[in-house]
Amino acid sequence: MQAAPRDEARESGKPQLSGSLQPLQDLVVDDLKQVNTIILEKMQSPVALIPQLAGHIVAAGGKRLRPMLTLATARLCGAEGERHHALAACVEFIHTATLLHDDVVDDSHLRRGLETANAVWGNKASVLVGDFLFSRSFQLMVADGSLTVLKLLSDASATIAEGEVHQLMTANDTATDEKAYLAVIEAKTAALFSAACEIGAVVAERPESERLALRSFGLSFGNAFQLVDDILDYSAEQQALGKSIGDDFREGKITLPLVLAFARGDEEEKAFWRRCVEDLEQRDGDLEQAITLMQRHGALEESKQRARDYAERARRDLGAFQNNDAKRALLQAIDFCVERLY
Amino acid sequence: MQAAPRDEARESGKPQLSGSLQPLQDLVVDDLKQVNTIILEKMQSPVALIPQLAGHIVAAGGKRLRPMLTLATARLCGAEGERHHALAACVEFIHTATLLHDDVVDDSHLRRGLETANAVWGNKASVLVGDFLFSRSFQLMVADGSLTVLKLLSDASATIAEGEVHQLMTANDTATDEKAYLAVIEAKTAALFSAACEIGAVVAERPESERLALRSFGLSFGNAFQLVDDILDYSAEQQALGKSIGDDFREGKITLPLVLAFARGDEEEKAFWRRCVEDLEQRDGDLEQAITLMQRHGALEESKQRARDYAERARRDLGAFQNNDAKRALLQAIDFCVERLY
Repeated sequence: MQAAPRDEARESGKPQLSGSLQPLQDLVVDDLKQVNTIILEKMQSPVALIPQLAGHIVAAGGKRLRPMLTLATARLCGAEGERHHALAACVEFIHTATLLHDDVVDDSHLRRGLETANAVWGNKASVLVGDFLFSRSFQLMVADGSLTVLKLLSDASATIAEGEVHQLMTANDTATDEKAYLAVIEAKTAALFSAACEIGAVVAERPESERLALRSFGLSFGNAFQLVDDILDYSAEQQALGKSIGDDFREGKITLPLVLAFARGDEEEKAFWRRCVEDLEQRDGDLEQAITLMQRHGALEESKQRARDYAERARRDLGAFQNNDAKRALLQAIDFCVERLY
Repeated sequence: MQAAPRDEARESGKPQLSGSLQPLQDLVVDDLKQVNTIILEKMQSPVALIPQLAGHIVAAGGKRLRPMLTLATARLCGAEGERHHALAACVEFIHTATLLHDDVVDDSHLRRGLETANAVWGNKASVLVGDFLFSRSFQLMVADGSLTVLKLLSDASATIAEGEVHQLMTANDTATDEKAYLAVIEAKTAALFSAACEIGAVVAERPESERLALRSFGLSFGNAFQLVDDILDYSAEQQALGKSIGDDFREGKITLPLVLAFARGDEEEKAFWRRCVEDLEQRDGDLEQAITLMQRHGALEESKQRARDYAERARRDLGAFQNNDAKRALLQAIDFCVERLY
């Protein structure tokens, strides 16, 4: 997770890298253990398949970035007590529920190198266990008792579902423009980042201005995060590192690099894009051709710049907070997010 | 919806029928208009597919039995104001979300004679719009602001999901016993009836004892309702009326008549049941044979008695309430529910 050492970066001519997730992970390591305990405890059910299936996806365990954001913003705001542990678990449950449903919707069979839950237990079980985790998240919020948090996360959940449906409508449609793309990622990804961060200020009972700053911070961070994810799916460098790329292209998912390359392409190129992402008629070499066209039209570079702009906005949103270890950790997490692009 | 006239019933040797849904429908007709307005308003979204798909299933409109229960129990308890309209809409949204996901899980293509949403728009859209309606329901509850209601409906939602997963685990498994069957229907159906009824007492700010009585009433009513539904799927009388039966049998869904007939069958009969519902190897005449075996072993009659017992418990739960038009309407609705068995 640590960024490359600075000397190496300097020698290779890359910009000096300051980003890392490590400070964020170090900051919340103890809190996150509590969160994981709550997650494991609350995904239990007398219906055996529920903890089995939920355990599979929870153990496959991503970075836990969203709950870490709740924990770190709570720390940033000087929250006391333990409420943020259960609420960070709520955020992760909602995220996990959407992953389960996403994998059904995308008919995915692999996630982070492991078989998806739907591949192992079938689509039916994944849909229903997703529903369970979603409900369980609201039960946890009710136990916490804050209508403010309930509003934040029910709003975020509705927005996520809207974003996912919107994405479904734009899939395989080269007429999708940048505005529609940005609306999709803000809804499906950034809304939950935003709520996760705002909860930090809520549990610390900070004034409205700080809540708004963290809401805005999370939104920009989430947008940057999703943009980077979408760009890396066309990254020759990632491919050289042995990572699998081209998933979005193969599914005909419309992301910003494709939107920009399509808009700037001539008729022949547009026909290429339509064949590949609308008709899903793909041949050997098409992904390489797609990357070549994106590079030729500066679509990847411009997408990267957009991600950097969001990251810069996220940094600015933290300006009002005093300089403590939580703020430094969040700033380095933002840097890490966009430095993956180099 | 009106029950058969009494004379006709008497002549045919059937018990005198007193049940009808009509008094319940008449009681809440104005309230229900408000609820429908809220449902239509709150299923809107800038993402066009959402109101389109949600409108399809909402318009296909069942009886709106669950929201009617919230409205009638609110009336029974002397609720004032309009809170129960939005909360009845919440109940219906949760029900609709589970129907959308159920149809995906069961791979159903028809519901009440109309194409299902998944048949028209695909499974993906149905899963995601279900998620949206579910989230929207929680947004509505948050706007209402009662943590008590939020607890009731988040608990019910988690229980429903558990019941659906449990049902998935018992599907095609003749080893399922009566206890497991009853646990499934109480979770997947009765829990929401129960919450819908308890909300009536909550909005009327009635004492704990009335809340508990209505919770219990809803639970018994829901269990009776689901039992009747499951029994009618094997009803030769329903078939004679031109209604489609045998859906559960064809899917290998394990319901009480089957549990009882299997338990009482000899080895040859058990082999028949296993072939039909475990291996799903079904031939012409198998459904008729299934019904014959159920009748021979008194499985249908005993299931009916179980439904009548639940109905009787539901009636008793209303004992503590004063005799007003709401109480009479609810009693007739219970009678209607079990009289469908004659």
